[in-house]
Amino acid sequence: MSDYNEQTLTEAVINRVAATPDPRLRQIMTSLVKHLHGCVREVRPTWEELLAGIQFLTAVGQKCDDKRQEFILLSDTLGVSMLVDLISYGKVGNATESDLLGPAWVEGAPELPLGSNLAEHPSDGEPCVITGSVASLDGTPLAGAVVDFWETDGDGFYDLQKPDGPNLRARLRTDASGQFWFRGVRPVCYGIPTDGPVGAMLRATNRHNMRAAHLHFMISAPGHARLVTQLFLTGDQYLDSDAVFGVKESLVVDCERVETREEAAKYQVEAPFYRMHYDFVLKSAQA
Amino acid sequence: MSDYNEQTLTEAVINRVAATPDPRLRQIMTSLVKHLHGCVREVRPTWEELLAGIQFLTAVGQKCDDKRQEFILLSDTLGVSMLVDLISYGKVGNATESDLLGPAWVEGAPELPLGSNLAEHPSDGEPCVITGSVASLDGTPLAGAVVDFWETDGDGFYDLQKPDGPNLRARLRTDASGQFWFRGVRPVCYGIPTDGPVGAMLRATNRHNMRAAHLHFMISAPGHARLVTQLFLTGDQYLDSDAVFGVKESLVVDCERVETREEAAKYQVEAPFYRMHYDFVLKSAQA
Repeated sequence: MSDYNEQTLTEAVINRVAATPDPRLRQIMTSLVKHLHGCVREVRPTWEELLAGIQFLTAVGQKCDDKRQEFILLSDTLGVSMLVDLISYGKVGNATESDLLGPAWVEGAPELPLGSNLAEHPSDGEPCVITGSVASLDGTPLAGAVVDFWETDGDGFYDLQKPDGPNLRARLRTDASGQFWFRGVRPVCYGIPTDGPVGAMLRATNRHNMRAAHLHFMISAPGHARLVTQLFLTGDQYLDSDAVFGVKESLVVDCERVETREEAAKYQVEAPFYRMHYDFVLKSAQA
Repeated sequence: MSDYNEQTLTEAVINRVAATPDPRLRQIMTSLVKHLHGCVREVRPTWEELLAGIQFLTAVGQKCDDKRQEFILLSDTLGVSMLVDLISYGKVGNATESDLLGPAWVEGAPELPLGSNLAEHPSDGEPCVITGSVASLDGTPLAGAVVDFWETDGDGFYDLQKPDGPNLRARLRTDASGQFWFRGVRPVCYGIPTDGPVGAMLRATNRHNMRAAHLHFMISAPGHARLVTQLFLTGDQYLDSDAVFGVKESLVVDCERVETREEAAKYQVEAPFYRMHYDFVLKSAQA
């Protein structure tokens, strides 16, 4: 019979999961036990502190329902989601970098023609024409690529958070030269929810809950890896302190204020309006 | 503006919690982020794996209610609880080692006189006389020490899991020479709950859910640190594989089968019966 000390106990738990039939799960459990115990040995919690941690995690789980995923919010605010983003998509050549999907994507957004106005209501925000292109790593324009787009309104709310139907959300397809354009609203900064345990964690650690203003894209084309990403705005006050560590330099673009009626007429909007542009590059499916 | 890689992202998150006003919370958050990110970098999860982990933790939280604490069960089965036990109580001289409190202690157990029979029903299990003493580190017997005791019945159920009132649970006080004795039942092995996500984890890692048979004690005396511990049985088949890593060599004692009527008469039981004995030594409150 073994009598454990702080080191041999960790070995014993690792030995106990060594019979896990699935090799990947075995690897995950082994690493998890090693790092979890490493943290406990370093922190040296009292029983009361362990119980406080357990109560926190319990509250995080119990805050989750079909509309709210507080554990993802915890993962986001501890930088774990962005770390997995970096690990799982990575950087390949000049391919556009990925970013978090976030909680507001939904399957089956309305399929709209290029040039559509996605802002249903005049109160949705400041008009912003969003243009772009989709190409392969070698520069070949991708015609018919699916551009799935979503953003909040000017008050920082996704359509999901409001009683009406889909708004500021669409699936569009690039034209024969790989271009797309549509009208949305100028993105705004908004706060992630703070009415749950993650909010309490942010307050206890003296952190704000603001996300840098951003637009969401999910772009797919046959033979290419699906790209999930976000675009940010040059000069945004939260670029350096985004609550979920989501900002990547290569995804920050100008949001230009356009005053002239000639430009406005091109996009069938009224001046003044905003304009953002990005050229997306997709990795091949094998990359 | 910083553009994170796998290393600098971890530094950025640690910097973000550096403004935590409470120094202990700052230390805990820093260590947690470091080890959590270290695990993620080592495991290199896909998005699907991260989401599977998040769904698992969510289910653990949602399995908790006022009678069930699945996160403690997770902590127990991953050896974290025993690690905190080792860290927080430790070994001092020949003081009795501590062990897990478990989920079945309740405040305000019936106060019973020495010699009481705690097994209310004939079906409670095989009679077992439990005797012991409580002393200081220097060997001084502690009179009037409170011995809070609880155990399962012979089917492996605590009274809390059954509709009747308190059973196999009591608070007794040592006599003038620091001795105590009472009648319980021979402890049996039982399984921790497997109808939740922790049970799924045990199955996926090819682990059984059995606890080595044990008795629970919480012993207090003025001027001494409260001792929470368990006693185990020599020869038990789960000593080496207890589901929560709870067995300590110094807490394993013989459970002797006594056949003679003379011995039975001493404790007012009928032969044959079982007998267990332990001499508890309490640390001082300052240790």
